[in-house]
Amino acid sequence: MKEISSLMGYRKEIKLLDATLRDGGLVNDFYFTDEFVKALYDTNLKAGVDIMEFGYKADKDLFDEDKFGKWKFCKDEDIRAIVGEGDPKMQIAVMADVGRCNYHDDIIPKDESPIDIIRVATYLHTIPAAIDMIEDAVKKGYKTTCNIMAVSTGRESSVVTALDMIGQSPVDVIYIVDSYGSMYPEELQRLAAVFMEAADKYGKTIGIHAHNNQQLAFANTIEAIGDGANWADATYSGMGRGAGNCYMECMLGFLNNPKYKIFPAVRFIDKYIRELKENGVVWGYDTQYLFTGLYNQHPRSAIAYTHKGRTDLTEYYKEVMTED
Amino acid sequence: MKEISSLMGYRKEIKLLDATLRDGGLVNDFYFTDEFVKALYDTNLKAGVDIMEFGYKADKDLFDEDKFGKWKFCKDEDIRAIVGEGDPKMQIAVMADVGRCNYHDDIIPKDESPIDIIRVATYLHTIPAAIDMIEDAVKKGYKTTCNIMAVSTGRESSVVTALDMIGQSPVDVIYIVDSYGSMYPEELQRLAAVFMEAADKYGKTIGIHAHNNQQLAFANTIEAIGDGANWADATYSGMGRGAGNCYMECMLGFLNNPKYKIFPAVRFIDKYIRELKENGVVWGYDTQYLFTGLYNQHPRSAIAYTHKGRTDLTEYYKEVMTED
Repeated sequence: MKEISSLMGYRKEIKLLDATLRDGGLVNDFYFTDEFVKALYDTNLKAGVDIMEFGYKADKDLFDEDKFGKWKFCKDEDIRAIVGEGDPKMQIAVMADVGRCNYHDDIIPKDESPIDIIRVATYLHTIPAAIDMIEDAVKKGYKTTCNIMAVSTGRESSVVTALDMIGQSPVDVIYIVDSYGSMYPEELQRLAAVFMEAADKYGKTIGIHAHNNQQLAFANTIEAIGDGANWADATYSGMGRGAGNCYMECMLGFLNNPKYKIFPAVRFIDKYIRELKENGVVWGYDTQYLFTGLYNQHPRSAIAYTHKGRTDLTEYYKEVMTED
Repeated sequence: MKEISSLMGYRKEIKLLDATLRDGGLVNDFYFTDEFVKALYDTNLKAGVDIMEFGYKADKDLFDEDKFGKWKFCKDEDIRAIVGEGDPKMQIAVMADVGRCNYHDDIIPKDESPIDIIRVATYLHTIPAAIDMIEDAVKKGYKTTCNIMAVSTGRESSVVTALDMIGQSPVDVIYIVDSYGSMYPEELQRLAAVFMEAADKYGKTIGIHAHNNQQLAFANTIEAIGDGANWADATYSGMGRGAGNCYMECMLGFLNNPKYKIFPAVRFIDKYIRELKENGVVWGYDTQYLFTGLYNQHPRSAIAYTHKGRTDLTEYYKEVMTED
């Protein structure tokens, strides 16, 4: 049983990362207004959020700059336009996907950049490429995280091997990423124990990034924190791909470190998240996501169901269940 | 750590109770069409749900029959009209609130009634009255449950005393009811341990009824099951007062007893829950409920905010926070 003292007190090592622009950008192709992004940065500062993830460092040869908002590419000058010159008042992160980032060219030395943290997202079968990206970023002066996506579909022996490989890299934080929102807290607890063993062995920190397909993103995030994870991702009102993420406002209520404040989050939601929703941007738990979460599938068919405005839930369920 | 075998296998003792009409009735003043109720009964039968709660046995002197649908009162003949003559094909429950039920007159002997289970809802300060109702129902031949509401506001010493009193009564099942949706799974685990100790001592079963104010109704329900609770309440798409309840479809996905089927639930949601929502019936998690859950308050102010169609979230938060 977890220590009640941890629940009433706080662990100062815990860091809260706002992934609204990055995971939320997957919902609206990264078309956020500058006003939104500035208000988000200001909200994070006031709420005590430790790290703000701006978006992806996506390969401009692979993705057409005309088809996405600027946070798909996170040019240093665009981040500067938000955070100003000099050292930003909070840590700034961007995500770089294995195979989708021209990192040798697009990630410049840290001392010339407002970015602090490069988050390398990888599947279990691309760990060597992820380590190459981590080493490149560390050489340039960045902190790094390695986010192992779709971990619910990986064999435990592969996870252990991957952790052993990543553990020997210079990465700072290794993330559990339940991309499909398919894990129950009991399963997450077991997986977190495996990650924590590697963390102890190699002196790494563990992070958690949860999805809400089965309404368990917040529950799984606080489960992982109880299990020893010290970095937690969240987004305002859960904005993120498909069923979305762990809600930042729930985390700000849960964490007891006095530096965290919920009121700035309330004001941001009241104005900016409401505006997004009124403009028809759709994310969050709905029954179609339960199906893909439950059956440990990529949510792409549930996202397509949502975007097409389909309302034939029974037919969709049959499609999920009868696919060979 | 919970046994992985319990998660992959199943405990045959677990019973799933559909509270859609009862807790959902609090959203629409119990005005369900007969077609809805018949379809719900049929769905529960096909989905393998063990118990269907029809509504309240409310005191007709206290509540005006013209101002509520019939499931506020659950007359035996109204239940018969749904389930037919003879023994119903599943167990039928109704709820009787302490102080709001004329139980001596309105609850007839079980052998003349389609009802199997009387669920007595009580606060910690009305336990003797609850026990009187339990004894009355047991004498008449019913199974009984005692649902201790708003348990998150009770002192632990009072909970222990209450469990000792109820333990000595002839009740079958004692429910943990997180009425305010304010408990985190870690807290629920501790509370469940207290309930389980009484259950073991007095030979009782423990039940769980969770609310979704902090998006934790499903997580808390499966936490309690992992801790030994054998009766679990859920409603279709979480229909219930305010932020609603644990979603039945999530439970049907989680529980591995082969008798539980999710497909009938999908069809019911696709037609009947959709219709309710299209007709403007509103329930479910929203930011206003996070506030009352977080601060362990009755959700009445958040419900009023919702019903008035207010959109001034920041002002509402100030009201919650500045109330003396």
